[in-house]
Amino acid sequence: MQFELTSAILESLSDAIKQKNVPYLKEQLHELYAPDIASIINQVTIDEAAYLYELLDDEIAPDVLLELDEETRENLLATFSTKEIAEQLDNMDSDDAADVIAELPEEIQDEVLSHIEDIDQASDIAELINYEEGTAGSLMAKELVSVYAFETVTQCIEEIRKQTDNVETMYAVYVVDNNERLIGMLSLKKLIISHPLARVEEIYEPDIQFVKTNTTSEEVAEFMQKYDLVVLPVVDQLGRLMGRITIDDVVDVIKETADENIQRMSGISDDVDTNDKLWVLSKARIPWLLVGMCGGIVGSRIIGTYEEQLKIHPEMAFFIPLIGAMGGNVGVQSSAIIVQGLANNTLLGDKIAPKLIKELGVGLINGLICAILIWAYAFVIEDWKLAATVSVALLTVILCASFLGTFVPLTMNKFKINPALATGPFVTTLNDIIGMTIYFITGRLLYTLFL
Amino acid sequence: MQFELTSAILESLSDAIKQKNVPYLKEQLHELYAPDIASIINQVTIDEAAYLYELLDDEIAPDVLLELDEETRENLLATFSTKEIAEQLDNMDSDDAADVIAELPEEIQDEVLSHIEDIDQASDIAELINYEEGTAGSLMAKELVSVYAFETVTQCIEEIRKQTDNVETMYAVYVVDNNERLIGMLSLKKLIISHPLARVEEIYEPDIQFVKTNTTSEEVAEFMQKYDLVVLPVVDQLGRLMGRITIDDVVDVIKETADENIQRMSGISDDVDTNDKLWVLSKARIPWLLVGMCGGIVGSRIIGTYEEQLKIHPEMAFFIPLIGAMGGNVGVQSSAIIVQGLANNTLLGDKIAPKLIKELGVGLINGLICAILIWAYAFVIEDWKLAATVSVALLTVILCASFLGTFVPLTMNKFKINPALATGPFVTTLNDIIGMTIYFITGRLLYTLFL
Repeated sequence: MQFELTSAILESLSDAIKQKNVPYLKEQLHELYAPDIASIINQVTIDEAAYLYELLDDEIAPDVLLELDEETRENLLATFSTKEIAEQLDNMDSDDAADVIAELPEEIQDEVLSHIEDIDQASDIAELINYEEGTAGSLMAKELVSVYAFETVTQCIEEIRKQTDNVETMYAVYVVDNNERLIGMLSLKKLIISHPLARVEEIYEPDIQFVKTNTTSEEVAEFMQKYDLVVLPVVDQLGRLMGRITIDDVVDVIKETADENIQRMSGISDDVDTNDKLWVLSKARIPWLLVGMCGGIVGSRIIGTYEEQLKIHPEMAFFIPLIGAMGGNVGVQSSAIIVQGLANNTLLGDKIAPKLIKELGVGLINGLICAILIWAYAFVIEDWKLAATVSVALLTVILCASFLGTFVPLTMNKFKINPALATGPFVTTLNDIIGMTIYFITGRLLYTLFL
Repeated sequence: MQFELTSAILESLSDAIKQKNVPYLKEQLHELYAPDIASIINQVTIDEAAYLYELLDDEIAPDVLLELDEETRENLLATFSTKEIAEQLDNMDSDDAADVIAELPEEIQDEVLSHIEDIDQASDIAELINYEEGTAGSLMAKELVSVYAFETVTQCIEEIRKQTDNVETMYAVYVVDNNERLIGMLSLKKLIISHPLARVEEIYEPDIQFVKTNTTSEEVAEFMQKYDLVVLPVVDQLGRLMGRITIDDVVDVIKETADENIQRMSGISDDVDTNDKLWVLSKARIPWLLVGMCGGIVGSRIIGTYEEQLKIHPEMAFFIPLIGAMGGNVGVQSSAIIVQGLANNTLLGDKIAPKLIKELGVGLINGLICAILIWAYAFVIEDWKLAATVSVALLTVILCASFLGTFVPLTMNKFKINPALATGPFVTTLNDIIGMTIYFITGRLLYTLFL
């Protein structure tokens, strides 16, 4: 059913390329869908990639190009002339073509555009690349079928026939007024079951959802997801129909947003992937490491004030990692739950206080379990004073971490900062500092009281 | 454009409910889409919820029911008779109806089924609830239009007209042979532009992608996402057409999988959300806390072996939190990148070695930056020996964490364990232990050599 790329397949293809065994390669490629061919081309050398790409049918080649990794596509297109690139773009949907052009070096973008034979396609692409990245305008495609309200079903079908070359997938026909403003839609099903002479205005659905060209991609994704939409029309400031966004593009946005959240939670500040260059990866990670370092230095100052006590009771140092780690773990658990609640819009104003109380309840239960266990351990292995210190500190730290893990992301969200940032190093660092303070204050108290 | 629920709206609705201001409420509700109404009902008391639900049009009520939180739906349905529940299910898509029935207490499921008026719908639901959760069978809906290859376009359209009440959204007509086995599809577009007397066998698309009823939901999601599909037919072991899965259901699976991964990375073991009960939340979190505790205990044993040295050099203890935290941060950063690469299938066999080397390169760059900074700090504030110990240990810990953060998730993936598990507490705990060991060995070495 689903194709799975193995090293064996890659090897046999590499061998076939070396032997220039064109019939074998063509046969192998012909059996595959575009994403599968792309997964192969991603894995081979650039020379092999260019060779394989040459062998593809004209019909599938642009789809394969779209499915490639950004890096591979860049390298592959660098081996093409501007005219060859233009030929590939001619057969793509306008939104995909605009994405590819936007990735090209700026100095050749105009040249590529000038080589595109279909003038409509060229002007569509030129329009699309002007929309800001991350907006509905940059997500939408120009390919759609629109009809006027006064037209008949037969005229609609004629219009669809005319545009059938351009519009590959179609779920609905949009209805516009004389000023090209979107006023509704007509499902293909409705079109099929209606009388040929019925007028669009009698059968169309006026209650239609749409977004504006400057709506953000995240809002579009949330919108389509919330209302279970497969296709969404895009209008300009005047309400004129400009394009349509399909769910497959939005699925990519959803995936990317989720990935980005995971990266923020892990303390990675830019959107990077494993294929990025070494220094890009380093740069994306160093900020939070420096924050962590500052936290560590503050921690060292706190412990430093208890230097004399440590000389007498060096065993106090034994449980420093435990206190730090547990504060971090609980904080991450709590904030992950809150960040998800925020991302999924299941948290609302007046439900925050109960969440906080519930979170503290969970902290109390788990904190008590952990505190009792560590008390028993330290009591047996060390002495009762250390046992008491560690268990009291652990419970307090877990409660603090539950509170901060809930409170920090909620506060960040209020100030429009991505709360996922809070879940990772920020809460961990804060908890480390607080944990050390509690631990040593408790320790000093108990040791001074009962010495 | 998009409805946003505020406390002000909730208050005004609550007031209107108290005053039984039905016209106002109906007018407010009528302006909203199902997910928006659901977001309101989720936030009000169960009595208010039942009151609002009663006011809804029959057309939108089942959609609202579907969009509710599981807990709210459960509470609301508990106020209904089995007959009333059956009425709601009658107007739902079969897959949604099956999901709702599966949530009901088992003893009333049969009763509800027996009250469903449409016999076809009842038998479809009865079939669907038997598929195992998490399979294509449990995701699919029975509503679809299928035609035989020998039929004409006109007959197809007749068939669509007949089934139009059941099938709300339709993107394609499926083509089956005389044994009901799926042999291809016919897009609505093709149907519209073809001659009315053309036979299906002349115009249908035989190259069709499908899944089996026992394919897992995750595979279905990956499949539809990879091949940009909006609808996917499902066949049984004999290749007979059993149902279809639409992209909106799969978008939910994608979201859920991403959420689950975030939870695993944060050390939460079951799939929980903020609405779950206190002890469920506690139980989901305690396992990794206990693992973290064991790590902390091991850490305490390691530091314990250096007790004598700590008496002489208590300043060694100052940087324990720093070493622990940095190892944790770097480990989480590295493993997050790898877990994402695995989830997105951008990592393949022979590309693992270069990734590991790259990861170590990033570790080296960031490790050196951090080590130099902490050396400078400790040199100024403390003394050169402690400065040397901390900076050497820090660099080593960061390199170790980079290696483990890459290696552990890759290994777990090889043994078919969800690598997201590795990213959270596991790598952090391991790094804590290794960090302490390195720190104290380095410290002892330097202090003994240069005392």
